[in-house]
Amino acid sequence: RIMRPDDANVAGNVHGGTILKMIEEAGAIISTRHCNSQAGEPCVAALARVERTDFLSPVCIGEVANVSAEITYTSRHSVEVQVNVMSENILTGAKKVTNKATLWYVPLSLKNVNKVLEVPPIQYVRKEQEEEGRKRYEEQKLDRLETKQRNGDVIFPVINPEPQTVGYSQSSLIHLVGPSDCTLLGFVHGGVTMKLMDEVAGIVAARHCKTNIVTASVDAINFHEKIQKGSVITISGRMTFTSNKSMEIEVFVDAEPFVDESRGRYRAVSAFFTFVSLSKEGKALPVPQLLTETEEEKRRFEEGKGRYLQTKAKRQVQLQQVAQQ
Amino acid sequence: RIMRPDDANVAGNVHGGTILKMIEEAGAIISTRHCNSQAGEPCVAALARVERTDFLSPVCIGEVANVSAEITYTSRHSVEVQVNVMSENILTGAKKVTNKATLWYVPLSLKNVNKVLEVPPIQYVRKEQEEEGRKRYEEQKLDRLETKQRNGDVIFPVINPEPQTVGYSQSSLIHLVGPSDCTLLGFVHGGVTMKLMDEVAGIVAARHCKTNIVTASVDAINFHEKIQKGSVITISGRMTFTSNKSMEIEVFVDAEPFVDESRGRYRAVSAFFTFVSLSKEGKALPVPQLLTETEEEKRRFEEGKGRYLQTKAKRQVQLQQVAQQ
Amino acid sequence: RIMRPDDANVAGNVHGGTILKMIEEAGAIISTRHCNSQAGEPCVAALARVERTDFLSPVCIGEVANVSAEITYTSRHSVEVQVNVMSENILTGAKKVTNKATLWYVPLSLKNVNKVLEVPPIQYVRKEQEEEGRKRYEEQKLDRLETKQRNGDVIFPVINPEPQTVGYSQSSLIHLVGPSDCTLLGFVHGGVTMKLMDEVAGIVAARHCKTNIVTASVDAINFHEKIQKGSVITISGRMTFTSNKSMEIEVFVDAEPFVDESRGRYRAVSAFFTFVSLSKEGKALPVPQLLTETEEEKRRFEEGKGRYLQTKAKRQVQLQQVAQQ
Repeated sequence: RIMRPDDANVAGNVHGGTILKMIEEAGAIISTRHCNSQAGEPCVAALARVERTDFLSPVCIGEVANVSAEITYTSRHSVEVQVNVMSENILTGAKKVTNKATLWYVPLSLKNVNKVLEVPPIQYVRKEQEEEGRKRYEEQKLDRLETKQRNGDVIFPVINPEPQTVGYSQSSLIHLVGPSDCTLLGFVHGGVTMKLMDEVAGIVAARHCKTNIVTASVDAINFHEKIQKGSVITISGRMTFTSNKSMEIEVFVDAEPFVDESRGRYRAVSAFFTFVSLSKEGKALPVPQLLTETEEEKRRFEEGKGRYLQTKAKRQVQLQQVAQQ
Repeated sequence: RIMRPDDANVAGNVHGGTILKMIEEAGAIISTRHCNSQAGEPCVAALARVERTDFLSPVCIGEVANVSAEITYTSRHSVEVQVNVMSENILTGAKKVTNKATLWYVPLSLKNVNKVLEVPPIQYVRKEQEEEGRKRYEEQKLDRLETKQRNGDVIFPVINPEPQTVGYSQSSLIHLVGPSDCTLLGFVHGGVTMKLMDEVAGIVAARHCKTNIVTASVDAINFHEKIQKGSVITISGRMTFTSNKSMEIEVFVDAEPFVDESRGRYRAVSAFFTFVSLSKEGKALPVPQLLTETEEEKRRFEEGKGRYLQTKAKRQVQLQQVAQQ
Repeated sequence: RIMRPDDANVAGNVHGGTILKMIEEAGAIISTRHCNSQAGEPCVAALARVERTDFLSPVCIGEVANVSAEITYTSRHSVEVQVNVMSENILTGAKKVTNKATLWYVPLSLKNVNKVLEVPPIQYVRKEQEEEGRKRYEEQKLDRLETKQRNGDVIFPVINPEPQTVGYSQSSLIHLVGPSDCTLLGFVHGGVTMKLMDEVAGIVAARHCKTNIVTASVDAINFHEKIQKGSVITISGRMTFTSNKSMEIEVFVDAEPFVDESRGRYRAVSAFFTFVSLSKEGKALPVPQLLTETEEEKRRFEEGKGRYLQTKAKRQVQLQQVAQQ
């Protein structure tokens, strides 16, 4: 679809969150369709995880985003979908690869939302595709267990913080979940959550560096818990690491089903976003270094540095692959 | 209401689809109100058909669109509504007639969506008004039968198409039907469908001529089948004809109720949109000619030419009528 | 959240209605949470009244609006919430107080919408806080009775009105209530109604003075009656008074549950909005005087003058308080 002014920041760059929402919608459609392709209980595919996603080039207002999705692996209870986004300037005809994302869905019964159904198997062209898929399936399963343990953290407000400290740029946003945010099952679309997370991360980044910022990448996101219609969600973000030209922001989503007293507030999602600062000509600008104060902040900075160095190496490989295609 | 940035293209011209959506909302309100004006089963009026609509002058961001609607004929099971749109620049006070549209609605029971109710008859000021209305009613009934037969067509993707060919500009868009798209009965508003159709037609037109384009007119649209909440709709468009200064684009809407296996994908709506290319000063620009390759494409081009010549004659008459008012 | 192009007028000033909607959402969340904090019947807090709200400084696209809410008084069946809005330019870091609003909510049972539940009492830090709250509670109760009596008025269209007369600028807007406009109970959010009221008042003001206008304040708004999903609402506005640099506009909201014949059209809300006209540099411009024609219009003008003089005195006090904080 055509990118509109509301999809973009003041400089005309489309928010990463808008792209993530489109990617998730495409993934939800193709996987729900697949899971209902054989006779049986009707179901809706719910997002369980998004693998790390890089934003290879910014998209502008007036451009058309072309989204294509393909099922690349099925386990007994989950579907792996590969989504590609191309942006096209319809006036010049120029096309660019914008994103390649991998998403995992789980089919939930339309009649009983707590029942996970079986996924019809897909046919593979080459035997190795199944093997590679199974490897990716096992890897993400491990990673999901790990992030579950990191989830107790809370963000406290800081009074009169110094510029460039963690407390100075940390931000949060509260949203009341409405009907348009939800699937047929009455749970929040994963894409809606990701769009809000990107918005909060963007505010944190802009507060830190006070320039025009854009999403560069999102680390793997795990959706631990469903969020029900009528909940209040609090999305909080804090900066964890800065390199010379990038900022890493950790984002938490907490849900509170506030008319149902049987359950309190719980952590539904968490993820790391990386932002860069852009000049008017679209070049990456230097970023002021994050000032860490507490031991916790120093530890998170070092962990962020680890992720940064690891991804830098991986990204080099990825960019080479894109260049070769 | 006031036209907002998201209602318009990059050049500030409000999308024809936004206007069509407003027209349909006004029609749905007045006809639902009329059909519930007598004691009896409560109902919602569903859009069955929109007659050919011309966009007489473009609307800009910040202008106010005034929509007025009137019931002009009732048959036993349908209501004809005439809707007029005036755009007003509230700063200068200048007003322009933008659209005159005729819509047909059918009242469906709120309790049983497959039951068509009876329409309370309206009073006519002059006897001839009833006669003229009946004539229009019979004509549109015939036309609806005709388009039903044309409906088997499908659009296939083309690999590496040449510029200005049909395959080069053809486009499609997928949309997951959410609660805000639907009426009280849980079916997609006709206006929502028309807005999406206009968006796809606009992408086709811009890809073909690579300039700022606006909707000039929409041929009669028949809504053959309802589209249910939770469906996926695919809107596809391809260019069928170009004159010196206009492009005709055929748009199909296919619906797929993807969690309900009892029914496959089906054609819900189809229509022809005409677009023109505008210079910065708002003058119509020449349009590159469409290159037809297959026999089918040549046949469709000739049919489009027939419609173009027929409408050109009719439009002359209409413009004279508007000028006399 | 970040202010987007669709939140603002052509000059980049965010609509007062967008701010009112955010304020109400914050109020609804905190009061619903409070009313469900003790075991008992689950409920949703419905907006009953908003006290007079001043817009102390305009907000621009790209700025972040920070909304904070606090419960300041509880009676047996109602909750008083104080909401503060600060706008922050995230690039310069500059912050401004934008609004301070007081809202009253009433908890309605989720199972039976006509049942008003009891509110858990709050603890007060100082004994006087409870006393002051009770005084505010009694005052607003009296005021609600008064406005109920003023509610019979209707706006008729005027043919060929003279510029600057009441008939010249009066405007109305019709809206079909959709699912995204409603709470869990299926009734329109108070904030949605206020946003539409601000839109109509803004059209009236712009038609009168033909310049860039912004909301300066909103008088107390009482929500007499709930508006149900599937209703049609008509929002009408007319100018009642002009001072040298401000315009007062009266806005009515009439609801019509058009598929339910048991009930006709009824007045749901009414309020007075004050707008000012701004130059490009953000200075208040002189406003052309309103020409009153009928006895009714002259009476309303005098009443408006009374409100204007009363508020002018009060506002002076308020601004001094803000300056001292």
